[in-house]
Amino acid sequence: MLKIVGATGKKLRILEMSKVSIDRTDLTDVTCAWYSRDIFAGGTPSRDSAATQLFFSLVNESPRLQWLHVISAAVDVLHYQPSRARGVRLSTSSGIAALPIAQCVVGAVLAQSRGFGGWFASQQRREWAPILSADAPRDLAGQHAVIVGLGPIGQEIARLLSAVGLRTTGVRKRAVPCSVVDSTLTFDEIDAALADCDWLILCCPLTLQTRGLINRERIDRLPHGARIANVGRGALLDEVALIAALETGRLAGAYLDVFEQEPLPAESPLWSAPGAWLSPHNSALSSGNGQRDAELFLSNLRCYMLRTPLRNEADSE
Amino acid sequence: MLKIVGATGKKLRILEMSKVSIDRTDLTDVTCAWYSRDIFAGGTPSRDSAATQLFFSLVNESPRLQWLHVISAAVDVLHYQPSRARGVRLSTSSGIAALPIAQCVVGAVLAQSRGFGGWFASQQRREWAPILSADAPRDLAGQHAVIVGLGPIGQEIARLLSAVGLRTTGVRKRAVPCSVVDSTLTFDEIDAALADCDWLILCCPLTLQTRGLINRERIDRLPHGARIANVGRGALLDEVALIAALETGRLAGAYLDVFEQEPLPAESPLWSAPGAWLSPHNSALSSGNGQRDAELFLSNLRCYMLRTPLRNEADSE
Repeated sequence: MLKIVGATGKKLRILEMSKVSIDRTDLTDVTCAWYSRDIFAGGTPSRDSAATQLFFSLVNESPRLQWLHVISAAVDVLHYQPSRARGVRLSTSSGIAALPIAQCVVGAVLAQSRGFGGWFASQQRREWAPILSADAPRDLAGQHAVIVGLGPIGQEIARLLSAVGLRTTGVRKRAVPCSVVDSTLTFDEIDAALADCDWLILCCPLTLQTRGLINRERIDRLPHGARIANVGRGALLDEVALIAALETGRLAGAYLDVFEQEPLPAESPLWSAPGAWLSPHNSALSSGNGQRDAELFLSNLRCYMLRTPLRNEADSE
Repeated sequence: MLKIVGATGKKLRILEMSKVSIDRTDLTDVTCAWYSRDIFAGGTPSRDSAATQLFFSLVNESPRLQWLHVISAAVDVLHYQPSRARGVRLSTSSGIAALPIAQCVVGAVLAQSRGFGGWFASQQRREWAPILSADAPRDLAGQHAVIVGLGPIGQEIARLLSAVGLRTTGVRKRAVPCSVVDSTLTFDEIDAALADCDWLILCCPLTLQTRGLINRERIDRLPHGARIANVGRGALLDEVALIAALETGRLAGAYLDVFEQEPLPAESPLWSAPGAWLSPHNSALSSGNGQRDAELFLSNLRCYMLRTPLRNEADSE
């Protein structure tokens, strides 16, 4: 069941819309709309569900729309731009999938660092091939993770990697200290952290300031054997330079959930780059997201009705 | 350089032995021996280095040996049994690889639970195949891990999984509470925890009480979609029953570092059992183990000279 919520004055009216029952004259009543889990479901970030397409056609035809709440964490999705352009307030469900995404990153950090990449390869050959002491992976405790972006995802990654014993540096827009990391730098200062970085983890929004942040020059600053994870946006990172560094063995591995082009084309060399683990923009997926999305929306709906500030409102700062 | 340490009275004499320079008459001076990292190196738990074979032939020929310190965590290694049989005190370096082993387990728990198994398969096909919402993996926070064995490895696993948000039950010889788990059971009581278990994690020693602990009946008590990890000993677990449960899909996955037979034979169906991730008795390997082993041995050597209790002494309780 698709839902658009229309709030007129103090009276809350909920239009529940299915593909066959929409009376477009109702759209004049719509002041707020919720792009919820059940509309998104069946699609993916790079392939819309039919419900998503219908929903946004209705949103764009609603002349009195004041507020749009969306399930995603970021505001750079194409569907949201017409609403933003006409001054509709936009809030997101940023944070509801922070734990699942962070758990993907930390799972990849632990599994790659401990040697699962080599073990998977020998398992496929049905070959008992232990790594010997001379090639032992380095102790994880004491390694250094540089976490670019300290939103809910970055903070959870930092919290878990600290529990494992890694040192953490957070990189963010402003050099505001953050209790979950050992130190913070601004985006402009990132070079200072790269020479001593074992895991470079990207989980910041894509903005004019972060686009292309990790270019070839910065990849070259990383020490031999470092690894990169990206759960932010593909355009944060120069994929061609990353592939080259994996192929020469300068970087030991990567975990990528986002890509410059999504879906990642079948001919991309990333699929088979040495040490690269890929998930198809899928790291957020977890059974509890719908419930968390609903709770956040309902809390925001209350704020909207009471004219108090919305949580996660874009452009509100 | 191989080392046997001989302590005579208050005078400490260190015999450093290489393969070519051993004078076996020196062995009458040997009262303590250290099976250290540099002797083990080059071999694996299932394939001895040449140095290991030489070392234990010397140990077994040392008539006045009183104490043997070994790098492993467990005392069931065949090489140690002649010394034990003739009353030589035995202490282990249990704990020095607890963090690396626990990190392997937690890496596998996170990565398997979040969906990496499916993602690896689609990556190999170069296919963009996101899991859809209807098949979303269950939230990890709130899942239940049953950790069999609460030595240093089990405690570190419990600490990290608690940080991720899982509930933990520890299973041990006696029902002594342990601060890192939410509750404890004895081995005899384990059935009470299995019906509600998402991850059954084996990290206890192999003893008469734990041999075959996880048999077919207990595997059948686990809920549909549960997973098993084993970093203890292969004989804790009925491999045939595990394989059957993986093949029918009743269990969703497994991570195994130890096996009933090591090296695991090439014809074992485990290599290709659905959802099984294998490492070749290799989860302990980490760069800092040698240093930690040396620190523990030297601390124990001080205790030995001062006639105070040894840490990790077998049969001492």
